[in-house]
Parts: sequence; C-alpha cells; structure tokens
Amino acid sequence: ATNEQPANEAYRPTILKQYLVPLWILLAYLAAFGLSRAFYNLALSYDDKMAFDMWAAYFNSLPSNLNTIWFLGMVLNQMLSKRTTATIQNVLPGTTHVMELFERALKKGIPERHQHVERFSRYILLMWLMTARQFSKPLEMEYSSWAKIQETLGLNDAEIKSLQRKEKKGEPLALVAYDWSKVFLAEMDDKKFLTSPGEVAQMYQTVYLLKKNCGTAMKFSNRELVPRIMLWISWAVLHLFGWISVLGLQTEIEWEGKSEKWYFPSQFSLPYFLVCFAYAASQIVSHPFDNNEDEDMVQTLNQKIENRKRFLRVYDKKCVEDLIME
Amino acid sequence: ATNEQPANEAYRPTILKQYLVPLWILLAYLAAFGLSRAFYNLALSYDDKMAFDMWAAYFNSLPSNLNTIWFLGMVLNQMLSKRTTATIQNVLPGTTHVMELFERALKKGIPERHQHVERFSRYILLMWLMTARQFSKPLEMEYSSWAKIQETLGLNDAEIKSLQRKEKKGEPLALVAYDWSKVFLAEMDDKKFLTSPGEVAQMYQTVYLLKKNCGTAMKFSNRELVPRIMLWISWAVLHLFGWISVLGLQTEIEWEGKSEKWYFPSQFSLPYFLVCFAYAASQIVSHPFDNNEDEDMVQTLNQKIENRKRFLRVYDKKCVEDLIME
Amino acid sequence: ATNEQPANEAYRPTILKQYLVPLWILLAYLAAFGLSRAFYNLALSYDDKMAFDMWAAYFNSLPSNLNTIWFLGMVLNQMLSKRTTATIQNVLPGTTHVMELFERALKKGIPERHQHVERFSRYILLMWLMTARQFSKPLEMEYSSWAKIQETLGLNDAEIKSLQRKEKKGEPLALVAYDWSKVFLAEMDDKKFLTSPGEVAQMYQTVYLLKKNCGTAMKFSNRELVPRIMLWISWAVLHLFGWISVLGLQTEIEWEGKSEKWYFPSQFSLPYFLVCFAYAASQIVSHPFDNNEDEDMVQTLNQKIENRKRFLRVYDKKCVEDLIME
Amino acid sequence: ATNEQPANEAYRPTILKQYLVPLWILLAYLAAFGLSRAFYNLALSYDDKMAFDMWAAYFNSLPSNLNTIWFLGMVLNQMLSKRTTATIQNVLPGTTHVMELFERALKKGIPERHQHVERFSRYILLMWLMTARQFSKPLEMEYSSWAKIQETLGLNDAEIKSLQRKEKKGEPLALVAYDWSKVFLAEMDDKKFLTSPGEVAQMYQTVYLLKKNCGTAMKFSNRELVPRIMLWISWAVLHLFGWISVLGLQTEIEWEGKSEKWYFPSQFSLPYFLVCFAYAASQIVSHPFDNNEDEDMVQTLNQKIENRKRFLRVYDKKCVEDLIME
Amino acid sequence: ATNEQPANEAYRPTILKQYLVPLWILLAYLAAFGLSRAFYNLALSYDDKMAFDMWAAYFNSLPSNLNTIWFLGMVLNQMLSKRTTATIQNVLPGTTHVMELFERALKKGIPERHQHVERFSRYILLMWLMTARQFSKPLEMEYSSWAKIQETLGLNDAEIKSLQRKEKKGEPLALVAYDWSKVFLAEMDDKKFLTSPGEVAQMYQTVYLLKKNCGTAMKFSNRELVPRIMLWISWAVLHLFGWISVLGLQTEIEWEGKSEKWYFPSQFSLPYFLVCFAYAASQIVSHPFDNNEDEDMVQTLNQKIENRKRFLRVYDKKCVEDLIME
Repeated sequence: ATNEQPANEAYRPTILKQYLVPLWILLAYLAAFGLSRAFYNLALSYDDKMAFDMWAAYFNSLPSNLNTIWFLGMVLNQMLSKRTTATIQNVLPGTTHVMELFERALKKGIPERHQHVERFSRYILLMWLMTARQFSKPLEMEYSSWAKIQETLGLNDAEIKSLQRKEKKGEPLALVAYDWSKVFLAEMDDKKFLTSPGEVAQMYQTVYLLKKNCGTAMKFSNRELVPRIMLWISWAVLHLFGWISVLGLQTEIEWEGKSEKWYFPSQFSLPYFLVCFAYAASQIVSHPFDNNEDEDMVQTLNQKIENRKRFLRVYDKKCVEDLIME
Repeated sequence: ATNEQPANEAYRPTILKQYLVPLWILLAYLAAFGLSRAFYNLALSYDDKMAFDMWAAYFNSLPSNLNTIWFLGMVLNQMLSKRTTATIQNVLPGTTHVMELFERALKKGIPERHQHVERFSRYILLMWLMTARQFSKPLEMEYSSWAKIQETLGLNDAEIKSLQRKEKKGEPLALVAYDWSKVFLAEMDDKKFLTSPGEVAQMYQTVYLLKKNCGTAMKFSNRELVPRIMLWISWAVLHLFGWISVLGLQTEIEWEGKSEKWYFPSQFSLPYFLVCFAYAASQIVSHPFDNNEDEDMVQTLNQKIENRKRFLRVYDKKCVEDLIME
Repeated sequence: ATNEQPANEAYRPTILKQYLVPLWILLAYLAAFGLSRAFYNLALSYDDKMAFDMWAAYFNSLPSNLNTIWFLGMVLNQMLSKRTTATIQNVLPGTTHVMELFERALKKGIPERHQHVERFSRYILLMWLMTARQFSKPLEMEYSSWAKIQETLGLNDAEIKSLQRKEKKGEPLALVAYDWSKVFLAEMDDKKFLTSPGEVAQMYQTVYLLKKNCGTAMKFSNRELVPRIMLWISWAVLHLFGWISVLGLQTEIEWEGKSEKWYFPSQFSLPYFLVCFAYAASQIVSHPFDNNEDEDMVQTLNQKIENRKRFLRVYDKKCVEDLIME
Repeated sequence: ATNEQPANEAYRPTILKQYLVPLWILLAYLAAFGLSRAFYNLALSYDDKMAFDMWAAYFNSLPSNLNTIWFLGMVLNQMLSKRTTATIQNVLPGTTHVMELFERALKKGIPERHQHVERFSRYILLMWLMTARQFSKPLEMEYSSWAKIQETLGLNDAEIKSLQRKEKKGEPLALVAYDWSKVFLAEMDDKKFLTSPGEVAQMYQTVYLLKKNCGTAMKFSNRELVPRIMLWISWAVLHLFGWISVLGLQTEIEWEGKSEKWYFPSQFSLPYFLVCFAYAASQIVSHPFDNNEDEDMVQTLNQKIENRKRFLRVYDKKCVEDLIME
Repeated sequence: ATNEQPANEAYRPTILKQYLVPLWILLAYLAAFGLSRAFYNLALSYDDKMAFDMWAAYFNSLPSNLNTIWFLGMVLNQMLSKRTTATIQNVLPGTTHVMELFERALKKGIPERHQHVERFSRYILLMWLMTARQFSKPLEMEYSSWAKIQETLGLNDAEIKSLQRKEKKGEPLALVAYDWSKVFLAEMDDKKFLTSPGEVAQMYQTVYLLKKNCGTAMKFSNRELVPRIMLWISWAVLHLFGWISVLGLQTEIEWEGKSEKWYFPSQFSLPYFLVCFAYAASQIVSHPFDNNEDEDMVQTLNQKIENRKRFLRVYDKKCVEDLIME
C-alpha cells in the first residue's frame, strides 16, 4: 500500500492550488483599494472628491453579511451534506463477501476448484475497478495502462484484448465484467458445480446487487447535488458583494475640535476573503472521494487486493488450529 | 442516444426564458426609480418634496433582508430538498433486473423461449414508458405518437390498438401494462413453463414491486412539497419588499460646510434582483427530472432500450470464452 | 370519482376562513393606530404628549424580526416537515396487493372461489375505511351513514349490524375488520383452501402488516409533532411583538431649518401581517391529508374501489390476448 | 383505562411547576431593576451617577438576540428532534404480534394449549412492563408494588417471588423475562409442541427482536442527544445575556429645548423572559414519553392488556360468522 | 463493572483540560487589553493617541456576531450530528445474538458441545474487542496487555501467541478473529455438528455481518464528518474575530456639558469567550464514544462479558421452572 501513494500525492497539488485563489483575491483587492486612494488623492478635483466620497459611501452600504451568508450557506450546506452521506453510509460496494459466497456455493470435490474461485474473484475486482476508475482521478492515473491492470488483477491476455476491443466500441467496461461474471455463473451451473438451485439464484442476486451498487456509487459521485445555476448565482453574489465596496470606507474622527478624515478597506472585505476561502474549501471537499486521506481510492483498491489474497489463502483451511499455528 | 437530443433541446428554451424574468424586473425597477426622480424634480412643489422625502424614508425603512430571506429560505430549501432526494435515492425504477429474473425463472427447453423473454421485456419497458411519459415533458413530446412507441418498443398491432382503445376509455396505461405482465405470468405458469411455484411467486412479487415503484416515482414527481399557499406568500413577500422602497434612498452629505442631497436606488434593490434570480432558478430545478443533463429522461429511456438489447444478446451464452472472443 | 367531490368541496370553506384572520388583524391594527393618533391629538396635554412619545419610542424598540422569526421558524419548519414526510413516504397503506396475494394463495378449483376472493377484499377495504375515517374529516362526512358504507363496500346486513353493535360497545372498528380477516384466513386454512402452510403464514403476515400500517397512518395523522406548549409560546410571541409597537413610530424631519414630526405605523407591522398569514397557512397545511388536492382521501378511497373492481375483473384471465382483445 | 388516569395526573403537577420558573425570573428581574433605580436616585452622588449611566450603557450594549438565539437554538432543535423521532418512528416495541405468532406456531391438538398461549403472552407483557417501568415515571409510580404487577399481568406466586429475588441480586428484570420466554420456547420445542423447526427458529428470532427493541426504546429514552456540557453553556448564555443588562436602558428625549432622561428595562428583557419560557418548555417536552397525552405510557400498557384479552378471546374462533354474530 | 471505572476515570482529566482553554484565553485577552490601555496612557503622544483611537474604532467595526456564528455553526452542527447519529442508531454491533444462533445451530447430542459454544463465543468477543480497542482510548489503555485480554476472554496460550505473532506482521487482529470464527464454522460443518445446510449458511452470514458492522463502527468513529480544512477555517475565523477588537471600544459620554471618554473591552469579547467554550465542548463531544457516561466502552465490554456468562448459564436449561426456582 506504500508504493501507490505517489500517484495520489502527484494528484494533490492540483487540488491544493485552489486554496491559493483567496490569497490572489486578497492581493488584487488591496491593490484596487490602493489605486483608488492614489487616484483620489492625485487625480480628482475638489468637486469630484465629494462625488467619490458619496458613491463610496453608497456602495459601502449595499453589501450585507446576511445576504452573502444566505446565498453561500444554501450551497455550502448541500455540498457538505454530500460528503456526510458518503461518510455515514457505505457508498462503495464491497467485494470480498461476493467471493466468499461463491466459494461456499461451489461443490467441494470438483476439478480445478481453486482456479474457478480465483477466476470469479478476478471478474469481481475487475467490475469494481472499472467502476471506480470512472469517478476517481488518482485511480484513473494509476491504472491508465492495460499492462498495469493485467498485472494487478492477474487477467489473462485474451481477457485484456477483449476489454480493449470493447472499450473501443464504447461499451461500459463495468457492464462487460458483469456479463462475464453472470455467464461464468451460468457455466458453473451448467456443469452442475454449484450445490443447489437456491445457491445459483442467490449468486445471481449477489452479482446483480454488486452491479447495482457500482452504479449507485458512480451516480452518487457524478451527480450534482446543487444545480449548476445555483452555484453560479452564489458565486456571483459572493464576488459582487465582495467588490462593490472596494472603494473603501470613510470615517471622520473629531478630536478636540480637530476633524480628520480616514479611509479604510470596507468592513465587508475581511469576511469576503474568509468566505472565499470557505467556498474554495467546500468546492474541493464536496467531491466525496480522494480528497481526504481516509477515502483514498488507490489505497481502497490495494486493500481489496490484499483482502482477496487473504481470502484465497484462508478459505480452504479445515481447522482453526492450522490458522493459529500458522 | 444522439438523435433524441433535439427533442430535449427543443424543450429547454421554454425553461431558460424564466431566467430572463429578473432582468425584466431590473429594467422595470430602474425605470420606476427614474420616473419617480423626474416627477420629484419637475412636478412637485416645495412642500410636496418634503412629504415625498419623508414617505420615501419611511418606505425605505420597511424592508429587511432578514424577512425576505426567511420567507424565501423556507420555500427554497424545501424545493432543493426534493432534488436532493431524487439525487441520492434512486427514484426511477429499474427494468433490466426484472427481465433477467424472468429469463432465469423460465424452463430451459420450452418452445419459443426467446419470444417469451422478448415479449415479457416489451411489457416491462411499456410499463416504464407509460409511467415516465406522465411526468416528463420531453419524453411526452418525443413519444407523442403511437407509431413511434410501437417502433421503439417493438409492440405488435393488436397491442397498439388495445392501448389506443384503453387510452380513450381513460384507463391508466401503466396499469394496463401491469395487467398484461401479470396475466402473461399466469399464462406461462399455466403452461408449466416456469421452473417452480417459488419462482412464480417471486416473479409476481417483482412485477408488483415494479408497478409500485412506478407509482412512487410518479407521485414523487407530481406532488408539491411546498404547499401552493406558501409559494404565494413567499412570492408576495419577495416582490412587496422589493418594490416598497422603489422611491429610493436619500443621503445628505456634508462637505466642509456645503450640504448636498443625493438620491439612490434603495440598498434593498440589489439583493432583490439577486433573490429574484435565485427564486426563478429554484422554481426550475425543483422539478427533479429533465432540467439537468444527467437526469434526461429521453436518454434514460434510450439507455434502457440499449440495456434490453444487451440482455437479449447475452442471456443464453453458455460460456465466458464466447463473450471474451466476441 | 366526480360525485364525491361536493363532500370535500363542502369541507373546504371552513378551512379557507382561517386565511381571512390576518386581514381582520390588519384592520384592527390600523384602527388601533388611528385611535391612538386621535387620542394623542385631541385628549393629551403638552406633558402627556411628551410621555406618549417616549413610551411609543420605547415600545417600538422592543420587537425584533429576529425574535419573531426564530420562535415561529422552529414551529413552522416542524409543521412543514410533517407534510414533507407524508409526501415522500407512502404513509397510507396499500390494499390491492393484499387482495392479489390472497387470490394467489387460494387453490384453483375450490367451490365459491370468486365469493371468497370478493369477501376477503371487502374486509380489507373495510379495515382501510374504518382507519381513514378516523383522521379524515371529509371521509367521515361522506361515510357517516352505515347505509352508504354498506352500499360502497357491498357488506351484507349481518356484517353491518355487527359493526353497529361493536361501535356501541366502543370497540375500534378497524380492529374488528382485522379480526374478521384473520378468522376468515383461519376458516380458509381449516377447509384446506390455501395452497401451502407457507402461504398461510405469509397471508397472516400480510394482513398483520396492513393492520400495523393502518395504525401507523393514524398515529402519524393524529400526533402533534410540535408540542402544544411550543405552539402557544410561538403564538404569544407573534402577537406580542406585533402589537407592542401599535402606538407607532415617530420621525422628525428637518427641512432647511423647518423641523416637523410625523407618525407612522411601526416598521414591524408589515412583517407582522405577513407572518400572521404564513402562520395561518402552515397551521392548515400541517395536517398532511385532505388539505391539498392530491391527497384527497375521498378520491383515494374511490380509486381503491376502482382498483378492486379492476382486480376482480382481471385476476382469472387465462391469457394476455383476452386482455388485449377486450 | 379510566382508573389509571389519576396516577398520571398526580405526576403532572411536578412537571407543570417548571413552567412557573420564567414568572419568578420576571419578578426577580423587575425587582432588581427597581432596586437599581432606587439606589441610583437615593444613594449615588453626582459623579457616581455618571459612572453608573456609563456602565449601564456598556452592559446594555453587550447582549445580542443573535447570540442568545444561536446558543439556544442548537440545543432546542436537537431536543425537539428527539421528540420528532419518537413521533414518526415507532420507538415502543409491539407485543400482540409476538403472541399471535406463538399461537400459530403451536400445534392444534396439544394438551393445555390455552394455558401455554396465556403463559407465553404473560412473559411477553412482563418483558415490556419491566422495560417501560425503567424510563416512564408514571408507570413506575403506578406499578411500584409487586402485588399490583401480579394482579395486572396474572403472574403466579412463584414467578413474583423469583422476580423479587432477582431484583435484589441486581439482575435486569427485562432480561429475566427474556430468559423465561426463551426457555419456555425450548420447553415447547422439547415436547414437540411447535409445528416445524422453521417455526421454532422464527419464534426465537421474534422474541430476540422484542428484547432488542426493548433495549433500543430504553436507550432512546435515556440517552442525552444534547451533551450535558452544551446544555450548561446554553443555560449560562441565556441567563448571562438576560441579566447583564438589568441596570436598564437610558433614553434622553429632547422636546422643544427641554431635555429629559428616562430609564427603562433593557429591550433584551422581553425576549429573555420569552426564551426562558421556551427553554423550560423544551426541557420538558424533550422527554419523548409521558409528557403529552397521546404518549401516556400507563394508557399504552392498559391498551396492551386490552389487546391481549381481545387476542385470547378471538384466536381460536373457527369461522367469521361466530365473530359477526357475537 | 465497578473496578474498571478507574481506567476510564484516569482518561477523563486529559479531556477536561480542554475546557480550561477558554479561561486561559479570557485571561490573555484581558491582559492584552490592559497592556494596550497602559501603553496608550503612558507611551503615546497626542497625535498617536488620535491614530490609536481611530484604528481601535476601525478594528472594532470589523467583527460581526453573524460571521462568527455562521462559520462555527456549520462546523458545530455537523459535529453534533455525528453524535446524534450514534445515539439514535446502534452503531456498535451486538454479540450475544451471534452466540445464541450458533448454540441453536449446533446439534444437541454432540461431544464437547459446551466447549464448542464457549470457544465460538470467545472468538466473537475477541473480534469485538479487537475492533473497539482501535477507536476507544480507555479500552485501549485498559486492555493494553495480552495477559489482561487472555484473562478477560479466557483465550488459551496458543491463541494469545498467535495473536502476538500476527500483530507483529501488521495484520488487522479483528480480521484474524473473523478468520478463526469462519474456519471454526467450517470445522463444525465438516464434523456434521450443525443441524442443516441452511443453518450453516445462516451462521456464515451472521458472522460476516458482525465483521461488517465492526468495520462500519470503526469507520464511523474514525472518519471526519467535517473536513479538516473547514475546521481550520472556522478556528481561524473564531480567533481572528475574537482578537481583532482587542484594542477595545471607546465611548464618549456627555454629562451636562462635561464630556468624558471611556474605554471598554469590545462587545464582541463576551460572545468570543462563550463561543470558545462551545467550540471546545463540541470538539470533545464530537467523538461519539467514551466522552459521556452512557457510552463508556469499558462498561460496554464488561456488560458484554456479563451477558456471555448469563448466556452460557441459561442456554441449556430445559424448563422455565428451573429458572424461576433458581
């Protein structure tokens, strides 16, 4: 599980760049404020200064924290709720139990039993990987070559070539793996290798559920909880209310008869930068996988491969002592 | 899936028109403000001006962002929550698994086996289409003629005529397709074509669940989460608080002894336009289907037809190698 | 389904009256404000006027939109959430599937088979109606006479008399119908009319679930999501904050040296009327049934009777062609 | 069900007392304000008055409705959500169906069949009562004596003595009743009184589920949704922001040259009393049982006993006519 | 259950220390305010004082309760929702029912029956403990030595040594216990000790579900509902808005011609301390186990051991009288 890390690590910087956006906004904002001050002091006539002050005061009265927060809150809350759903429910389908059930459904003394178990478990992992590769960027980068996939899952050459051909035809590869699993079950059933008709029906059901859960996970990852138009409006509101008061805030201070005017960045600028930061953060975290450590899809796959090995090693042990003495 | 796009595309403009409403409101608002200024400067006597200023100040004190946001928020949140539900749960019923189960329940050597499988799958897709057509505008436009339906699903002439007759009698066509599926099961059972009584019961149950899920999807699409009276109130509140301050905001600026009065559009006008936009957007997105790309019902149907073809091609393959070599 | 409409229509006006309450409040409020102004101008001495102004200013500073909205929001949100639950979940139990299952569990060649199916479906509908009548006012008005019930469900005289006797004893009639269904199943089982012991157990379970769902639907309709004490507090807060500022708002306007005082209704009066309206609306819609068109219980019952007829007509068809040619 | 009412009625006053707390707070607050005024007018020198005014103004600027509402809102919403959960879901486990299933699993012609059914149903009700007594005060008061329990459930002397002994040893009595039910099932199974091994397994499962649901109901009632530390903080915030402005609000009114100072209770005092009331209310209603009429546990138990009688009377009826003629 | 308390008690102080953080912040804040006052009075020239006042006024205008509350609220609500989920659902998997099912699946007259039951129950508890030790600090401290684990669960020496070896190899010990349970089932099945193939399949399923629930509980405890970046932002916002106004608030009071200036800590300081406290509290309570009394994992384990003893004592009782007389 350690040598896959780089792939994911390589993917992270592109994410982290988005956190720098608010800093660029901060610099641009301060520069704009400074320019407006220089313009005011150097270029404006007496009457223009009065007009400038008045427009600055008007623009400064327009934003309101309540408005910004409401528009953003609606969007942010929904983005976070997608992540929450992914955390509480198990969105990713499991694979090991499917292999265990198949092994148990298979009769004990049949020829090439281990090969059948291994082959079936290969198709199951293939279905999982072909699904997950569609919504996980790091997984796609790691498993972009067929050679790597073949090596990891132990597919034979005919299978790899078939997958390549079907990919060109545009067939969804997860469905191809589903078809293979189903037909493999039919083959086993045909040869009378499965213990009872009940087990056959249950295996079909299990494989179908795996396919369905793969579909649900993909849907869950791809769909937009917040409609794009709402994202645009909240984005526009955020920056509109952030920049409309860029001309600054004018305060007149009276000090024992002496009156002086001071100009400051608007009091809405600080919340604006903070909200920009929260907005960038939640756009990133709203993708429920890959962006935080414990949902690293590459590690998840490695664990699945590890679990498969463990399963293939343990399943035909006859008594507990063997395991304990191991 | 590409040649159906136009139908849906043709439907979109009618939706997009609603996004222009806030722009018209913006123009009307600015015109009203301009007219009131012109009226003030040209038509009002000295005393009237004082009364005008006072009423404008009073009206400007009435709206509050908090009130608008609260009334709207209650409505918008519920509208969005309908969409969220549609995204997380699978509201649309699946059809392929029903066909798979039927095929497996059918005995192997019976006469005209393939025709039976095809016929049953036809009734299942018919039930789905007759349901979805009721709540999806683009699907209704695409499948408005019986000829098109016949061609897509492969119904025979007697079936189409029967559907036409029942439509005239006002029977719900999804229920008609349900009855056909049920009676077809009874027919198969009668001829002893199904493997066991358990399978018969399970098939009835599966078809019943499909009907129930169709009903749920239709209910879900049609029902109003937010009572109409609440929509009216929130609509009234929005425009009342938007227009009550149309007379504008008066600011008196003092500038080294010289005092001058300025008139601006109220500070509630900007949030008003933005909220109008959000309101239009959420009225559109609150319809959980058709209004965003990944829930296009026409594409969903095409995919279902594709899946049916794939199922009919794969189901009687005897071994995986055939599939791999394919 | 058309001739039942009047009953429900007749029930609606009593609901709609509640929407007029805010208008009466508006009138009373304006009258109170007018009276206080008249009293101020005619009856108060110079010093009293000063005290009046001061008290009016104090009372006007007390209400806050935030407080009103928070107290109400807590209550309104929960009221609406009850409706949302009723919309998304199917709170009302289904009846047709119970009949279908019974018909399938019954052996094919037994004497008086159709009568048994009809009798069982009669008891099922009776259970549903006896439950729904308890929480739906229009249904209660429509089915207030035993004659009408007998005619609609086709009960015989002995059954009606028995129901009348048990109603007098205070027994819950839905439970009586449940007992009848159960004992009818036992009778069928005793005569060996059901296909297998498994079917018997399943039928008992199905009838039990129907009873349980009836109970859940009744509980759901009757229980108070918002405790009554919370309703009282929110009601008190609403009207307290609405009326405490009835003395009005005083503004002093300076106009080129000339200073003048004006009195207006408080800026909290407008939100007050709007919130009154929303309050009345949500009190009405919080009852999840009958108050909107698509949840009309009378229509739901009519549809159930229609579905039962359809079921009795279709269930013993032998082949699909019969249905298609029909 | 009528003679149990007093027990619950007797319990209510202790609850209602809590609603008087805000009234006492109101009186104490007004007294403190009055005392501070008297102290100001009588005891303070000229300079002290100035300091007093200044501190009062500072303290009056500290509270904010937003803060109080936020701290309380978090707590109140969660308290109410517990009640909502209890309302929508059925937290209390059912008992009648367990008895029905047992009766149906028992062979028809066995000796002492009715006694077995009665005995089993007795243990089931005992398990329910022993669970509910732990979280329902009124139920505990009503069923505090073993004599009353024996009479209500019809336990024999040996059973009561055994329960008394185990109570002394500190064993959870609900688990004792669970053990009895389980061993009673084993006894029945041993004597071959149950129809099939499948029925035996199902009965064990049903009794286990009842135990589990009892545990869930108890957990649900006892656990604190809101951590105690959050309750303390919200309590401290409420009273801190309520009392910090007790010195009152000073207004200076100018009236044609004459300037006068007035002192009022702070504008935060009114919301403070109202929020106190809401706080008391939600502390009470947050206990999901007993505090509102339709969740009265004593009545629930009485209904369960009634249902058991009904079940024992009806279960061995052979045909519906007997019930109808009854 | 009493002698384990100390372990947990010993763990608590480290938690409680976090509640002192806000007090330290309070002291630091007041010290900083005092220093700034001293600096102002002693070190600043006349012109510097004017600049200081102006900057203090500007900084005091920047924070807003609304912003702080919104940033924190988003985070706190999600933290509390994790706890709520843990309270309403049963996140921790049960173990006693697994033992009961195994005992019932085992044939009656087999040799060493009691030992098999005991051994299986030992593996089940081991799986639970190995899972819970990973997310519960107190449980980890209590069961840090293998000797203690051996004594509590009654493992034999070979088992303990095997666990130690596998721990060194880095294998997840919960999975090791799962493998043992599975292979033990295979062993029992091999010796024909289980009543039927159906029971075998059910036992595998039950053990698999226990493993899955263990995994879910661990995931639930470890995952971060709120992304770390959001925590950082809310933490930064809290302290930024708390400290930016540390220079204090200046009030000018006019008192019959005499004007005096006073300096106070900002009105945002009080909410700041309170919110700090709420933040510390919710960071602690957001861990759903161990931090409140009724979720003490050490006690939960003790109860599980107690329940196992009870189960081993009761399971082979033949009749209820034995239990009652006990």
